Amino acid sequence: MSKEKPLVSIIMGSDSDLPVMRSAMDVLDKFGISYEVKVSSAHRTLDRTVEYTRTLDKRGLKIIIAGAGGSAHLPGVAAAATILPVIGVPLASSPLKGLDALMSIVQMPGGVPVGCMGIGESGAANAALLAVRILALEDDKIKKLLIKYIEDMSKKVVEKDKQLQQQITKK
Amino acid sequence: MSKEKPLVSIIMGSDSDLPVMRSAMDVLDKFGISYEVKVSSAHRTLDRTVEYTRTLDKRGLKIIIAGAGGSAHLPGVAAAATILPVIGVPLASSPLKGLDALMSIVQMPGGVPVGCMGIGESGAANAALLAVRILALEDDKIKKLLIKYIEDMSKKVVEKDKQLQQQITKK
Amino acid sequence: MSKEKPLVSIIMGSDSDLPVMRSAMDVLDKFGISYEVKVSSAHRTLDRTVEYTRTLDKRGLKIIIAGAGGSAHLPGVAAAATILPVIGVPLASSPLKGLDALMSIVQMPGGVPVGCMGIGESGAANAALLAVRILALEDDKIKKLLIKYIEDMSKKVVEKDKQLQQQITKK
Amino acid sequence: MSKEKPLVSIIMGSDSDLPVMRSAMDVLDKFGISYEVKVSSAHRTLDRTVEYTRTLDKRGLKIIIAGAGGSAHLPGVAAAATILPVIGVPLASSPLKGLDALMSIVQMPGGVPVGCMGIGESGAANAALLAVRILALEDDKIKKLLIKYIEDMSKKVVEKDKQLQQQITKK
Amino acid sequence: MSKEKPLVSIIMGSDSDLPVMRSAMDVLDKFGISYEVKVSSAHRTLDRTVEYTRTLDKRGLKIIIAGAGGSAHLPGVAAAATILPVIGVPLASSPLKGLDALMSIVQMPGGVPVGCMGIGESGAANAALLAVRILALEDDKIKKLLIKYIEDMSKKVVEKDKQLQQQITKK
Amino acid sequence: MSKEKPLVSIIMGSDSDLPVMRSAMDVLDKFGISYEVKVSSAHRTLDRTVEYTRTLDKRGLKIIIAGAGGSAHLPGVAAAATILPVIGVPLASSPLKGLDALMSIVQMPGGVPVGCMGIGESGAANAALLAVRILALEDDKIKKLLIKYIEDMSKKVVEKDKQLQQQITKK
Amino acid sequence: MSKEKPLVSIIMGSDSDLPVMRSAMDVLDKFGISYEVKVSSAHRTLDRTVEYTRTLDKRGLKIIIAGAGGSAHLPGVAAAATILPVIGVPLASSPLKGLDALMSIVQMPGGVPVGCMGIGESGAANAALLAVRILALEDDKIKKLLIKYIEDMSKKVVEKDKQLQQQITKK
Amino acid sequence: MSKEKPLVSIIMGSDSDLPVMRSAMDVLDKFGISYEVKVSSAHRTLDRTVEYTRTLDKRGLKIIIAGAGGSAHLPGVAAAATILPVIGVPLASSPLKGLDALMSIVQMPGGVPVGCMGIGESGAANAALLAVRILALEDDKIKKLLIKYIEDMSKKVVEKDKQLQQQITKK
Repeated sequence: MSKEKPLVSIIMGSDSDLPVMRSAMDVLDKFGISYEVKVSSAHRTLDRTVEYTRTLDKRGLKIIIAGAGGSAHLPGVAAAATILPVIGVPLASSPLKGLDALMSIVQMPGGVPVGCMGIGESGAANAALLAVRILALEDDKIKKLLIKYIEDMSKKVVEKDKQLQQQITKK
Repeated sequence: MSKEKPLVSIIMGSDSDLPVMRSAMDVLDKFGISYEVKVSSAHRTLDRTVEYTRTLDKRGLKIIIAGAGGSAHLPGVAAAATILPVIGVPLASSPLKGLDALMSIVQMPGGVPVGCMGIGESGAANAALLAVRILALEDDKIKKLLIKYIEDMSKKVVEKDKQLQQQITKK
Repeated sequence: MSKEKPLVSIIMGSDSDLPVMRSAMDVLDKFGISYEVKVSSAHRTLDRTVEYTRTLDKRGLKIIIAGAGGSAHLPGVAAAATILPVIGVPLASSPLKGLDALMSIVQMPGGVPVGCMGIGESGAANAALLAVRILALEDDKIKKLLIKYIEDMSKKVVEKDKQLQQQITKK
Repeated sequence: MSKEKPLVSIIMGSDSDLPVMRSAMDVLDKFGISYEVKVSSAHRTLDRTVEYTRTLDKRGLKIIIAGAGGSAHLPGVAAAATILPVIGVPLASSPLKGLDALMSIVQMPGGVPVGCMGIGESGAANAALLAVRILALEDDKIKKLLIKYIEDMSKKVVEKDKQLQQQITKK
Repeated sequence: MSKEKPLVSIIMGSDSDLPVMRSAMDVLDKFGISYEVKVSSAHRTLDRTVEYTRTLDKRGLKIIIAGAGGSAHLPGVAAAATILPVIGVPLASSPLKGLDALMSIVQMPGGVPVGCMGIGESGAANAALLAVRILALEDDKIKKLLIKYIEDMSKKVVEKDKQLQQQITKK
Repeated sequence: MSKEKPLVSIIMGSDSDLPVMRSAMDVLDKFGISYEVKVSSAHRTLDRTVEYTRTLDKRGLKIIIAGAGGSAHLPGVAAAATILPVIGVPLASSPLKGLDALMSIVQMPGGVPVGCMGIGESGAANAALLAVRILALEDDKIKKLLIKYIEDMSKKVVEKDKQLQQQITKK
Repeated sequence: MSKEKPLVSIIMGSDSDLPVMRSAMDVLDKFGISYEVKVSSAHRTLDRTVEYTRTLDKRGLKIIIAGAGGSAHLPGVAAAATILPVIGVPLASSPLKGLDALMSIVQMPGGVPVGCMGIGESGAANAALLAVRILALEDDKIKKLLIKYIEDMSKKVVEKDKQLQQQITKK
Repeated sequence: MSKEKPLVSIIMGSDSDLPVMRSAMDVLDKFGISYEVKVSSAHRTLDRTVEYTRTLDKRGLKIIIAGAGGSAHLPGVAAAATILPVIGVPLASSPLKGLDALMSIVQMPGGVPVGCMGIGESGAANAALLAVRILALEDDKIKKLLIKYIEDMSKKVVEKDKQLQQQITKK
């Protein structure tokens, strides 16, 4: 994690969500984007979550990533307490495998938007990448890294394909 | 609505939810239980909802009924802001017909309970009836009315059956 | 389990449901609320379940918690046989992972309310906590414990957050 | 409805279910199988439903058809109170369009079987036809009518096809 | 398996379904009801399945139990090829955990009934128990065994409850 | 409908499915591909459906399009009775809005493939278009028409866009 | 629509999606944010959609809002062709009422993020509001308008509540 | 894999999909049908996927099999870029177990057909078998092998049944 002033806040209701949300942190690390991580529950520490969220805009943070499972209220509560863009990550922590969290996050009422990602780790990584895309709008360094990231991702697919072709030919 | 000090608070995020939530009001009226109704959104007026909910215990109210559709956060936010029992009513106001609201309300994390009812009008009526059952624990007048209500409900089924039998015999 | 006169009845259809329902027992134990546990099936021992449920009000119990999986009829049958408030816990004991039990419990017809909790262990714990909230309405000792429980829960989140911040700083 | 001693009992929780359950009555009428119809709720008149169901075997009835919507407990409660075969019909009376009733009826625990039909009118008709198939096992008159019914059904498809071919050729 | 003339045919599309369907066999064994088991697919051996099903009525069998997963057509195809009552068991053999099989079996069109059971082993056991209930209509020996089976099942619940009470008291 | 030897067979279980399946006929008409339409049920006229399907390969037809709702067995039964490619169209004719038919058609067991389309009219149209793509593999006239069809479809989108731009500019 | 250089591109696959997507346009109009609207399909005009999307970054647009129903590929294809943030709106245009579109849009693979909104009109409005939140990060005029918008939304709830209270008091 | 000119292209977005898609390769190998395998993502390498797909018709390939999980856009994008028939295989690679991929693949808009298979391995095998059925239309050698394949499949069922009968008799 960069020591600079953080631009992104990653919130989760419980530290048990950390292993999944780490995918978001890993992506931001790759882009050298500083972030802060907060364990704060929409239910168990509602006031603290609201107060914390309220500080973010003033403290210069730009984007909130909130991960939650079950009745996943954290992203929606954050969106209600800030004017910053909020990105929600549904976690598959209940027997319904994240379908509950997905519906809780994505079906926000008109007026209070949350950008919902896919369930679990790839959703957490994509939350960070959406943050990167947003930050790249005004930061050419990030933009260049993003273009490179996308190219590398593309190259990796091509590389995997090449390996597969060799594997098949050898047989 | 009775003029007495209210015992139940019925909250909804939008006045468009009123026609469905009226089923709860009608039931409480039948039992002579005073209540107050509040339009306050978990998203559009988060602080106000939290502050309002916080007053309820001190003001002597005993039960909160909260109806919400889509990413239905209102019952959960209320439950996080009070120690009173909260009863949630999922509303079928989105294309997913209340399945989204049901999941948002029922899958609360351990520690912050919401008693979830069925979707829509019969759920709203049942929310009031669960409130009645709770209040009947310490109020013999309500308890007697509840016993009568259940008997009447039962009699109505028997009456409907009698009508059906006559209808069939006549044919 | 306290030796006092029980206030809560925890019913389940099979002793295989005990490991999940124990979460409810643990919560009640924490609050010193005495309860009784009953294995009685809505299907295999219908009469016994109805008769047992009928005694609860007279015997001074106040709340029923019923856990069931699949075609989860136990909470509804209990609600039909008593005037006490009934809290239902859907169990994930079938291949549909509790979605079936959730629908069976939550979609009760108007007139016979069941307060439905989330699926599985956290739902069972919350069932007990909703019982605690109801009992706290008339019992200041329980109310004080409830306020403390909620504060402790909140402190634990703050503590976890502190640990996370240290962990991150050390890196 | 035949005036003979009834062989089939058609139960429903509310007379509002009658229009759908009439499909079952119509089928039994076609086969000259006498039946009785009962409005009795698993929730609002639990005892009466159980008592009524208990008489059926002794009174010589052979099959129970039970229709229910939402938390559809009627077929399961009937199956728990009798040794007769019970056929359940999920009704689409809630916003979930019968998916809730289907899960409540079909996912019965081992030991207490209910044969679940499709949702709504065609399910109700099929409930009667399954009853016919069961009664045909020991009644040659019904068996002959069943064979004819199936042949007629088949002929009707062939006839419809013929009409379609003519329609197409004319064009 | 009894050596007598079989009364029930248990069909499955693949021998991989045998472990689940064995629950049905075990139940019939307990009742001394003779049965035959057939591996025959609605898709891979359609003609054979139809021909086999056609023989059952003439050969004196009375009930067909058909288990199938995925696009579970076996029960429906059997029902189309016989006048005997058909009981379907959805198997959780695909990633959709039997929801697909359930819908394929239960939503039969009007005219061709299949009595659908719950998903998996308890559904298979219940299929056999529904067959027992049907056969008990005309066989007093089976009827007595069925009454005893239900009583034993009930006693087992009571016994488990007793054990639980002792366990709790000891603590 | 072209008077030539038919290449495609469109089967449906009931003439009530005709309005939806007509979308398939309309597409084939546009391509001048001759087809035949058959009302034949997998359940009500199983033998006839199997026999009819068996003739298709010998009679020179190349593709089968089968539309069905609910427990939609028709495409699967057709696929079991032929070596021709079978395309299935789930119909939204039950309260479950085609989700049942979709699962019944798409989840075929390994060995007997059915190419499943989307639910309802656009699915029926696409069934015909998949048939067109298959027939275009060996028929240059159809291939040219297909390329033109795709170009026209594309042009229509561009045209609609142009209209939209003008509409917006005028305002 | 403002005559200034557009900042947001609203894409939809068909002009039949316009009535729903207009909610997004209305929101942007309120904020004086210029946008362009494009009818371009991910399937019928894939190249055109890709090419169009590719120009957006260079032409100075900052955010893409893409609405789509059924197999809703438009947002994902746009996200694959640009480095701009993409917001997807699932439309309820199929019998599955947008559940299909929701899953198609939200479950993007790691690497290519789409911020998914709720189904239908309120989702479209929220897409625009998320765009506003993003643009407000670097534009104080928009930020002020956003703060006012949120305040007005909040006031409207309070106003509605006041009206409700008067209505109730009058009775 | 045959060294001949390939007739089928098997595309997947990631080499992690290979173990499932190998079922398709195995089937084609059995029929001596040459194919090529390509790792190319609809999202990470959109242009490459479109360009690759565009070559297939000209290079003489006849059928495309595309496997994808989550927001499974690969089959739809392929179908938009070619006039060849496209067969889609939903993969159970997300917590939603392939239900998301199924909906993304099957609900294609009118005009751009994809033949959707079942989820996972048996779906992949069936994709190859549908390709075989299509190729058999114009290739008598493949047709003969297909007839034999179907006969063998049928024989295997009969053989499994024989083994089961012996197993039962021995007991």
